[in-house]
Amino acid sequence: MGVNRTTVGSLVTDLAARGLVEERLPTDNPGPGRPSPVVGPHADGPVVLAADIGTDSLAVAVVGLGGAIVVSHRVSRPRGFRSAQDEMAQLGRLARGCMAETGAGQQFIAAGISIPGLVRRADGFVRLAPNLGWHDVPLADLVSQALGPDVPVLVGNDADLAARAEHTRGAGIGQADFICLWGQAGIGAGIIAGGRQLAGRAGYAGEVGHMTVNPDGWPCRCGSRGCWETEVGEEALLRGGGETPGHEWAGVDALIQSAAEGAPVARATMDRAGRWLGIGIAGLIDIFNPGALALGGLYARLYPYVRPAILAEVARRTVGTSQGPVDIGPVFLGDDAALLGAAELALAPVIANPTVVPRREAPQPRPLRAGNEVERHTAAQHQGGETAA
Amino acid sequence: MGVNRTTVGSLVTDLAARGLVEERLPTDNPGPGRPSPVVGPHADGPVVLAADIGTDSLAVAVVGLGGAIVVSHRVSRPRGFRSAQDEMAQLGRLARGCMAETGAGQQFIAAGISIPGLVRRADGFVRLAPNLGWHDVPLADLVSQALGPDVPVLVGNDADLAARAEHTRGAGIGQADFICLWGQAGIGAGIIAGGRQLAGRAGYAGEVGHMTVNPDGWPCRCGSRGCWETEVGEEALLRGGGETPGHEWAGVDALIQSAAEGAPVARATMDRAGRWLGIGIAGLIDIFNPGALALGGLYARLYPYVRPAILAEVARRTVGTSQGPVDIGPVFLGDDAALLGAAELALAPVIANPTVVPRREAPQPRPLRAGNEVERHTAAQHQGGETAA
Repeated sequence: MGVNRTTVGSLVTDLAARGLVEERLPTDNPGPGRPSPVVGPHADGPVVLAADIGTDSLAVAVVGLGGAIVVSHRVSRPRGFRSAQDEMAQLGRLARGCMAETGAGQQFIAAGISIPGLVRRADGFVRLAPNLGWHDVPLADLVSQALGPDVPVLVGNDADLAARAEHTRGAGIGQADFICLWGQAGIGAGIIAGGRQLAGRAGYAGEVGHMTVNPDGWPCRCGSRGCWETEVGEEALLRGGGETPGHEWAGVDALIQSAAEGAPVARATMDRAGRWLGIGIAGLIDIFNPGALALGGLYARLYPYVRPAILAEVARRTVGTSQGPVDIGPVFLGDDAALLGAAELALAPVIANPTVVPRREAPQPRPLRAGNEVERHTAAQHQGGETAA
Repeated sequence: MGVNRTTVGSLVTDLAARGLVEERLPTDNPGPGRPSPVVGPHADGPVVLAADIGTDSLAVAVVGLGGAIVVSHRVSRPRGFRSAQDEMAQLGRLARGCMAETGAGQQFIAAGISIPGLVRRADGFVRLAPNLGWHDVPLADLVSQALGPDVPVLVGNDADLAARAEHTRGAGIGQADFICLWGQAGIGAGIIAGGRQLAGRAGYAGEVGHMTVNPDGWPCRCGSRGCWETEVGEEALLRGGGETPGHEWAGVDALIQSAAEGAPVARATMDRAGRWLGIGIAGLIDIFNPGALALGGLYARLYPYVRPAILAEVARRTVGTSQGPVDIGPVFLGDDAALLGAAELALAPVIANPTVVPRREAPQPRPLRAGNEVERHTAAQHQGGETAA
């Protein structure tokens, strides 16, 4: 980095005084002589509250610098519209539970919320979250009222946040051009282009679920017809079973179970979904020329069954040899990708400018200790994700 | 800009010594007192050679700082495959003609080439230009051999360069998120996202012509089926006439003429093209949430006839009121958009770092003169473009 030891030392001292980093003895120390201490995020450093308001579950976590989950709660729930007020009440209960389990001295510096909908980036205003039944909800304001005025609240779209987390710590590491598809009831994309997140004029970019792939296809609840979402979304999957008597799956779990057992109708439904996924993915590859593309949410769960059809369509429908291989596979961070992205969103101001965190009155040097329990704990949490094909 | 008069003065003096800018008296001087001189591009400053290798024409221009065309030649020619060697010979003849008409003292600092194909950004290598019949042509190297080693040669995709020019001086001014569609035999897009040109990993981004919009549609020469290009490209347009006996248009000119005369078959063909254009444009709007989208090349010529169907599909197929209006219309720079983009590409290193141009031995101050003939000349050249709807 072109700075000398003295400068590094004084920067580390300042960051440590703000409770952001601490020095530790390395766990592996190959050479002889006194080991150099390793600087890492402070285990009792400032944390953020992250929330993932999903269609099928609600998750809240306390996350530290470096993406370490201190504590997290996720509750499944039946799908259905719910008022923003009810949602705030449940989110508040979960958040208080998480905060109670966190060390008393932990400083909450911000909150990040993931939402399956169109979010205006500037003020966290939710224009539309169709699967929650929300229109024009000032979400950041509502959360601020619950948390108090001292904690800034940032809101992002779930696919955008999943892409952000995967780009930082998952399938998109080192990829300047990266696409993360994220499916729950619908499908959206978070897109990194040239190393930066695609936002669009109002922050609504990435609504790939409504690009037309089949002009004469099924009507979409957006008012159009043959949107990508109508061909690959959850409804299309369940319809695939329903067309054959005796195969009305109660839900995606039953479909996946049938496919795992090799049931022909389930396999055919997966093939069909894979073909339509591949058709849309091929278009995105032609548009973005990405290095990698990851599938998350619903599509990470389907991936083993839809993979062959996806790869066949991508091979057939991209501009061929001129593109070079694209690394296609499931997300690495599993169901927590959007939640971890919400945490990254909330941590971003501190990463950009650590001096927003005040120096502690009396910096208390901690004894050097071996290992990094927090980071090991986090890595274990993330093993749910598969590695890319 | 937070710099004082003295600093500005010394910077202007340095730029003037390099022959990049000159001071002029303003043409309009509303207030009393001595008018402040205006700094603008130097009329005898360094220039670049720009070329637009199109499927239907070949254009070469000498362009100065600020995008002023000093001289330009465009020759129409029958469509067809031609060898890169033949193309270099014709390009060389046109370039020598342009350079002969340029002042003898003019300093050529770089060349920029526009090509309808996939270009590797790093070294100007053309992977594929299907409508020229080119595969793996080291175009930048070939042009360098013709111009000599002192003139850097930069090559770009026509749609990317048209978008660049329109973003700087046309329909995309002030738009951080802007899409320029560019059609000749095929269709491509140049895309500005968050103020930066979308490139993708290898520079191949924007190949929107091969996104699938109609999976059961016509076969495409890319090997796929139902690509956007097969529905809105020139072949599809001419096929529209061919389906009705007595309406086999010899070319796009004849189709446009028929549509202008109100011939029902021509109008129906335009409606069909407009619907398919709108379907793809709606998808791009959902993906990019742009502020403006401009149609160039073939589509600028068709625009008056395809506009109603485009706008109807966009209204029907985007995520509705949440998007806000997108300014859709033809490019402002007409057929020269890609040519002017090639010039911008070649000028970019000087704009980024003016010290690449050496200081002249004896800086010759020019007498202040009123007006800016070069810029007025350029503006006149650009009046061919329509303004956006």
